[in-house]
Amino acid sequence: MSSITFIGAGNMARTIGTRAVAGGNTVEIMARDQSKADDLAAALGGGTTAGRWGAVPTGDIVIAALLYDGVVSTVAEYGDALAGKIIVDISNPFNVTFDGLAHEEPTSIAQEVAKIAPAGASVFKAFNTNFRGVLEQGRPDVFIAGDDTSAKANLAAFVESLGLRPLDVGGLKMSHWLEGMGVVTVGLAGNGIGHGNFALGVDEIAA
Amino acid sequence: MSSITFIGAGNMARTIGTRAVAGGNTVEIMARDQSKADDLAAALGGGTTAGRWGAVPTGDIVIAALLYDGVVSTVAEYGDALAGKIIVDISNPFNVTFDGLAHEEPTSIAQEVAKIAPAGASVFKAFNTNFRGVLEQGRPDVFIAGDDTSAKANLAAFVESLGLRPLDVGGLKMSHWLEGMGVVTVGLAGNGIGHGNFALGVDEIAA
Repeated sequence: MSSITFIGAGNMARTIGTRAVAGGNTVEIMARDQSKADDLAAALGGGTTAGRWGAVPTGDIVIAALLYDGVVSTVAEYGDALAGKIIVDISNPFNVTFDGLAHEEPTSIAQEVAKIAPAGASVFKAFNTNFRGVLEQGRPDVFIAGDDTSAKANLAAFVESLGLRPLDVGGLKMSHWLEGMGVVTVGLAGNGIGHGNFALGVDEIAA
Repeated sequence: MSSITFIGAGNMARTIGTRAVAGGNTVEIMARDQSKADDLAAALGGGTTAGRWGAVPTGDIVIAALLYDGVVSTVAEYGDALAGKIIVDISNPFNVTFDGLAHEEPTSIAQEVAKIAPAGASVFKAFNTNFRGVLEQGRPDVFIAGDDTSAKANLAAFVESLGLRPLDVGGLKMSHWLEGMGVVTVGLAGNGIGHGNFALGVDEIAA
């Protein structure tokens, strides 16, 4: 099992955190508003602790469960406190019309995080195509992008502990296309596909 | 049923064309090398005809079954012969390292086609995440992007006639992200997912 710290105490931290506790992982919650971290830790139970904002996380895997426009600045604020950590960006930087990204360049929040992450940290994109309502109910595929092979194996093991299927799409550069798949998911939902209750996934074809 | 013209007589024209004939559609093949059009039309059977390169297609739906770098120039070469047609770009403009697109800008081959398409033509992106080997065997989801709602319904009906499931991801701008999903598909295949025998699709979650 893994040790996980969520930076952020919102809906995604609650949803993934619930699965993480059920999967036997050690969970810590951090939030800028300490009372929110305390409340979510108590709600999750199973030994979940509340950390102090900006301190060194107890988790080896740190999930930035934040709105996209706060991810880079928060990782910068944590600075060396994240040295050596597996940092997971789960954000969707949608533009205002939800048909593109907030950045026009072929980058991603995860790649921007990697540019400012401390020494020894490994940055990944994951979970951004797994919208909350589906994560609560289903067993969707979790697409993962990142460069560090051994850290990626650790992250994949954590995803499996959640009862989900990790799928390695390649290096961190692929994060841009995973963010695009988030846009596609919103587009499909807007057209009524699956009554909005679906996830993009891999359909294997029987030989 | 629909009337379909393939511009191009390669593997994708053969694969989609085989399904199109089986689905009762009227099929025409055009190729710059007339003998290739003649050969494929004969091989597909079911009344498939070979058209003359550059002539007005008999099909209401025209599938550009070409390598990505020939799509825009071919549509330009056809010019007004494609007036009023549904033009479908199925290409994958991969970069040389297969982790991005040949164009760095947030555009797509389909959007570039739309810029030079003749009056009344409706341009769509579709089929680019459905690699040939999978199309031959499975019943994968076909993602469709385009702006013209009534033409999109016609294209969706054609996709259904192939025994496939059309999924509307939104307007033509979404073609950029569908091209990115082609990149993701290659990335997953490179990591051994499904022994390369899979398609991205939508997994609906039971309520």
